[in-house]
Amino acid sequence: MKAWSGLILSAVLAATSASAQTPPPPGSAEALPNMAARLRDRALSGSGAYDILESLTTEVGPRVAGTPAYGRAKDWAIAKMTALGFKNVHAEPFAMPVAWTQGVETAEVTAPFPQPMVITGLGRSVATPPEGIEAEVVLFPTMEALQAAPPDSLKGKIAVLTEKMGGVESATGYGAANRWRRRGPVEAGKKGAAGFLIRSLATNDNRAPHSGALNYDDDAPKIPSAALSGADADQLERMAKRGKPIRVHFTLRPTLTPNATTWNVVGEIPGASSPDEVVLVSGHLDSWGLGTGAIDDGAGVAITLAAAHLAGERHPRRTIRMVMWGAEELDYAGDAYAKTHAGDLSKIVVAGESDNGAQHNVAFGMPAGAADLPAVKTLADVLAPLSVKFNADPVRAGGDDVGKLAPLGVPQLSLRQENSHYFDIHHSAEDTLDKVDPVEMDKAAAAWAATIYVIAESGVDFRKAAPPPAKK
Amino acid sequence: MKAWSGLILSAVLAATSASAQTPPPPGSAEALPNMAARLRDRALSGSGAYDILESLTTEVGPRVAGTPAYGRAKDWAIAKMTALGFKNVHAEPFAMPVAWTQGVETAEVTAPFPQPMVITGLGRSVATPPEGIEAEVVLFPTMEALQAAPPDSLKGKIAVLTEKMGGVESATGYGAANRWRRRGPVEAGKKGAAGFLIRSLATNDNRAPHSGALNYDDDAPKIPSAALSGADADQLERMAKRGKPIRVHFTLRPTLTPNATTWNVVGEIPGASSPDEVVLVSGHLDSWGLGTGAIDDGAGVAITLAAAHLAGERHPRRTIRMVMWGAEELDYAGDAYAKTHAGDLSKIVVAGESDNGAQHNVAFGMPAGAADLPAVKTLADVLAPLSVKFNADPVRAGGDDVGKLAPLGVPQLSLRQENSHYFDIHHSAEDTLDKVDPVEMDKAAAAWAATIYVIAESGVDFRKAAPPPAKK
Repeated sequence: MKAWSGLILSAVLAATSASAQTPPPPGSAEALPNMAARLRDRALSGSGAYDILESLTTEVGPRVAGTPAYGRAKDWAIAKMTALGFKNVHAEPFAMPVAWTQGVETAEVTAPFPQPMVITGLGRSVATPPEGIEAEVVLFPTMEALQAAPPDSLKGKIAVLTEKMGGVESATGYGAANRWRRRGPVEAGKKGAAGFLIRSLATNDNRAPHSGALNYDDDAPKIPSAALSGADADQLERMAKRGKPIRVHFTLRPTLTPNATTWNVVGEIPGASSPDEVVLVSGHLDSWGLGTGAIDDGAGVAITLAAAHLAGERHPRRTIRMVMWGAEELDYAGDAYAKTHAGDLSKIVVAGESDNGAQHNVAFGMPAGAADLPAVKTLADVLAPLSVKFNADPVRAGGDDVGKLAPLGVPQLSLRQENSHYFDIHHSAEDTLDKVDPVEMDKAAAAWAATIYVIAESGVDFRKAAPPPAKK
Repeated sequence: MKAWSGLILSAVLAATSASAQTPPPPGSAEALPNMAARLRDRALSGSGAYDILESLTTEVGPRVAGTPAYGRAKDWAIAKMTALGFKNVHAEPFAMPVAWTQGVETAEVTAPFPQPMVITGLGRSVATPPEGIEAEVVLFPTMEALQAAPPDSLKGKIAVLTEKMGGVESATGYGAANRWRRRGPVEAGKKGAAGFLIRSLATNDNRAPHSGALNYDDDAPKIPSAALSGADADQLERMAKRGKPIRVHFTLRPTLTPNATTWNVVGEIPGASSPDEVVLVSGHLDSWGLGTGAIDDGAGVAITLAAAHLAGERHPRRTIRMVMWGAEELDYAGDAYAKTHAGDLSKIVVAGESDNGAQHNVAFGMPAGAADLPAVKTLADVLAPLSVKFNADPVRAGGDDVGKLAPLGVPQLSLRQENSHYFDIHHSAEDTLDKVDPVEMDKAAAAWAATIYVIAESGVDFRKAAPPPAKK
């Protein structure tokens, strides 16, 4: 296996190397794979992605949608894309049903062992009264246990879900845990709870709690809800073992603003010969307010922007469109884009999003029916030296935002990243630039640049390749 | 070398193993080393130290000297020592010149790149006005650069010292960095600064800043002073590279209480035949307010208490005295003890303190002249299987608190610990129980138990062994 892999790799590298020295004539049969390979290596040698990320996280910092900081991020995005030579740079405003920003956040055990705890509000949580709420806590080891609690059994209490999120690949990984956080406040509220605390959704147990959105139901009480740091959740469990009722006081004073304005920010490298065919790549510009949004998702913005810029310098036939989403964390940006662009979504050849950190890619996925297309085979060859493998499972949603375009017929592209430490950091105060390795960002930018270029320069049509929809 | 070490180790283990099966008659020549070895192995198999630490950090949590939480810690200490069978358990009150407790702490860059920062006040810092202070910052890469700034050059500015503390063994390790933190506020104040921020004294760069005491001078302005997280110090340096003046706003609202009461808590295992000869071991019960004081210094309290208890169960000839210091972080506890016990310090055979975390020991040190004493040679043999080696350098101060007794003639003992990650955590919100390994605590308790027993059971007299003071 090893020798065989080595041969393939050598062959690809030899082709790459030759092409780097003798550029083939434009339009020749060899042009596409060779140009893509050269572009990949150009990005590897310094893509500019880290500098973009440093600029965003330093000059703007945290940028919650609906705040003045997001307005500064939008201005930064317009200036950055303009400086990189993008055309048609503009911000597309839309109203969010509600914007949410943190205010004062405090928590402490008041009995039997008085001491401070560390919490952070969940996105969309209502505020407590200014003096906070204080009540006995009821600990639940699992979401199932919370759901199984009898009606009214939590009346006036604070429900605490201590279930520990598992690793990326586990059954209790972020996919499951994300539902606990989104749904827990409703389940606790329906049973009469006055408040809800959840063990921070994270793969470590430090004192930096991770925020994230909740989803209220219109027919359930809306109760103040926060994430408790892993270390504090452990502490509550140790206290509970000592057998006495535990009382907790907490205060959350967020600002909720209905119909707040935010923006998706867009820029293009117009296609050299087919400008009405669009390859859309993206990251989300908004972040939570605790860190500086370095890995979530300044990195995705920076990687795709650097990649689009480098691919654009080769003047491919199709238009490359960079989108920076303006409200991913509260799930509003993709729908807004779909509404604004209802009339021209058919121009989008494929849409992709980078929103899983700042590390290298490990696999790429394509729309249904794409596996045997020549452009996809070319791309697989070009990405092989980066150890990015083709995943034959058709991509249903390339990301939280572009995924909103999938039901409207927009083909989806995915570049999966190494992310085993992503959930140590995301949504917390620890999401800062020092966690990012520039070399890793160059690898990711190289994969994205090659992908963008191959699709933008080829005539590949994923809609034609897709199998007919199954009959109902 | 390896085979030779192995032989020695095997011989010691064989002796230990034999002694565990056939206890020698009390008073026999073999009793001391064999009893000490059995005690060591007993502690290794489960010393109880971790349970003590879990109890303290869970049932009390953070315990700043001069606060109600410290009062609860004092009550916990009395109850715990009583439950473990200690006699003469009591708290010795003393007045601190000033007690200091954190209040509201906020910080943000206001221009040119508005964003929040994370700080924590330095112990003894004065408060800012309620609305905080806002001023341009001046960054200094080293303490020398701050000291070299011209008089009045910082008038109305906030001085920021960004120098990075080095590793444990380096020239810029905690010994040096501790002086930057203690002295920085005075240096900045003398040059007219309105406030002082220092890069958190730590061996990592997370968002959890480390507190610690400062020392004002009576003849220099007392300015509000805080530690800035490593990640935030990096961020200020990145901003500074962009060339525009940086303005920072910060608020510190600590409570300073002159003449506040705290307590050293004391308990004894009376000596079986020489109760007036005292082996004093200790840790400090007070902590900073951010974490739960797990490694600093709940661990030291728990290790020495468990060790004293286990050694006491063997009824050695001399008294074992456990002291839990009541104000180590602000440096007041050792002096208070010296004052209270001025008349009976001569009874103390030796004094030791565990205040460097929860990990195993790597070396032990003894008073001047002790290297050739039979008891010390016995102890070296008993500690060898734990890889705790004798360090021939005479110990001048066995810890911050017991060190205050050294000039009064109290011989000093030291058990050095593995501490390469100690400064990742200490004085910060991350100092919580999850960072502690129970097996490591048992190793430390084993070393302390054997040490206590050998000294308490032998007739060793370090004062007699000490060389005569050098003539001046």
